Amino acid sequence: MVRERLSEMVDKGLVTRTGLISHGRGEAFDYLMGERSSEPALRAERAAAAYLLRAGSPVVCVNGNAAALDPANLIALAREVPAKMEVNIFHRTEERMSLLISYLEENGAGRVLGRDPDARIPGLSSDRALCTREGIYGSDVILVPIEDGDRAKALADMGKTVISIDLNPLSRTSRTATVSICDEMTRALENIMAAVRALRGDPGAIEGEIKAFSNERNRKEAVEGICSSLRSEFERGA
Amino acid sequence: MVRERLSEMVDKGLVTRTGLISHGRGEAFDYLMGERSSEPALRAERAAAAYLLRAGSPVVCVNGNAAALDPANLIALAREVPAKMEVNIFHRTEERMSLLISYLEENGAGRVLGRDPDARIPGLSSDRALCTREGIYGSDVILVPIEDGDRAKALADMGKTVISIDLNPLSRTSRTATVSICDEMTRALENIMAAVRALRGDPGAIEGEIKAFSNERNRKEAVEGICSSLRSEFERGA
Repeated sequence: MVRERLSEMVDKGLVTRTGLISHGRGEAFDYLMGERSSEPALRAERAAAAYLLRAGSPVVCVNGNAAALDPANLIALAREVPAKMEVNIFHRTEERMSLLISYLEENGAGRVLGRDPDARIPGLSSDRALCTREGIYGSDVILVPIEDGDRAKALADMGKTVISIDLNPLSRTSRTATVSICDEMTRALENIMAAVRALRGDPGAIEGEIKAFSNERNRKEAVEGICSSLRSEFERGA
Repeated sequence: MVRERLSEMVDKGLVTRTGLISHGRGEAFDYLMGERSSEPALRAERAAAAYLLRAGSPVVCVNGNAAALDPANLIALAREVPAKMEVNIFHRTEERMSLLISYLEENGAGRVLGRDPDARIPGLSSDRALCTREGIYGSDVILVPIEDGDRAKALADMGKTVISIDLNPLSRTSRTATVSICDEMTRALENIMAAVRALRGDPGAIEGEIKAFSNERNRKEAVEGICSSLRSEFERGA
């Protein structure tokens, strides 16, 4: 079903063909992790909620694949935090930007930034660098679902707290992020929202989650999780 | 480059969009295996060569993704064995069959079967079952690169020796095949050809390869290989 929907989104111009290939890569990792949120993923999701709640100017960044996969939960999280929402795509054309923003608005989003960029992310060439001062450029904490490695690094180099959602714990994005969530996007968004509701209004608990969190330990456990999932899957099916 | 080529092949009608997603899944596994032919892959490729050389009626089966990825090596292997070549696709239309067969012919293939099916693979519903008596139906050894699990199982149930090329050692195709090659298709085809040249004319060596080969042990080592590759990649990059 997800595959058919993404494939339709190519017709609509929201998703690119190389976007389909990268979705396939994600699917493989999700399969390897047993298609459920692992313990390290849940810990990263709680830390993400804490960083978003503590932020002065949090932003949820949305690209083509993310919008096509689950607009409702992206919008719901931005509302829950609350955080601003900005569309930022790898293969930028004005038409695709417009399509994506309209698609989010049709799905109930409030204000969506990105149509009129007035700033550039330093260190990125081409139109990938374009963003808004009010949104991505001025943010202190930024959630990037399914981000490419160059942009994740450029955002981290700006001193931002980068929260990534990327199923591959070894990707450049996961290596670069402050909080690397290795989980399928819909599950990740729902878990972050649940943690936002649980932590809101409790600054001690928020600080506690951030202090307790080690991204490196967490990524290592995600790698170990893939190995044990592979082994048990082999034993079960062999 | 491969991604761009596959994406162009969607325009030409050779590759489907869901084919792009499944290519992405393969890419993830290739990445996890370090993008090289592992020891278990090389062993499976030698066993594949031995089975193909010993066969009475070997067939190289070709689908959309396989044809788009590397027509030259599919054709070269069929010539080297020699084996018949038959196009067999999941989303069958007469137009796509025709396009694929023409594409292989443009790339230098001799006779390509599949245009006029006169038999059905038992146990498969829909047009996926269609094949030719001269090719797939009557074959004793069949090489299926990037095959779907249902068809791999149906072919095995017919009593055929099924040689799969599938990067995921836990896929239903890999679980079902007699020889499960977990390697990227181009590398696999080139390694099989080298083994065909080395083994040809030496029935003792051919029997030796087949006797020495254990597919289950091999698949288990492929799984272990993914784990050690993941760990060393984590240590290297962390």
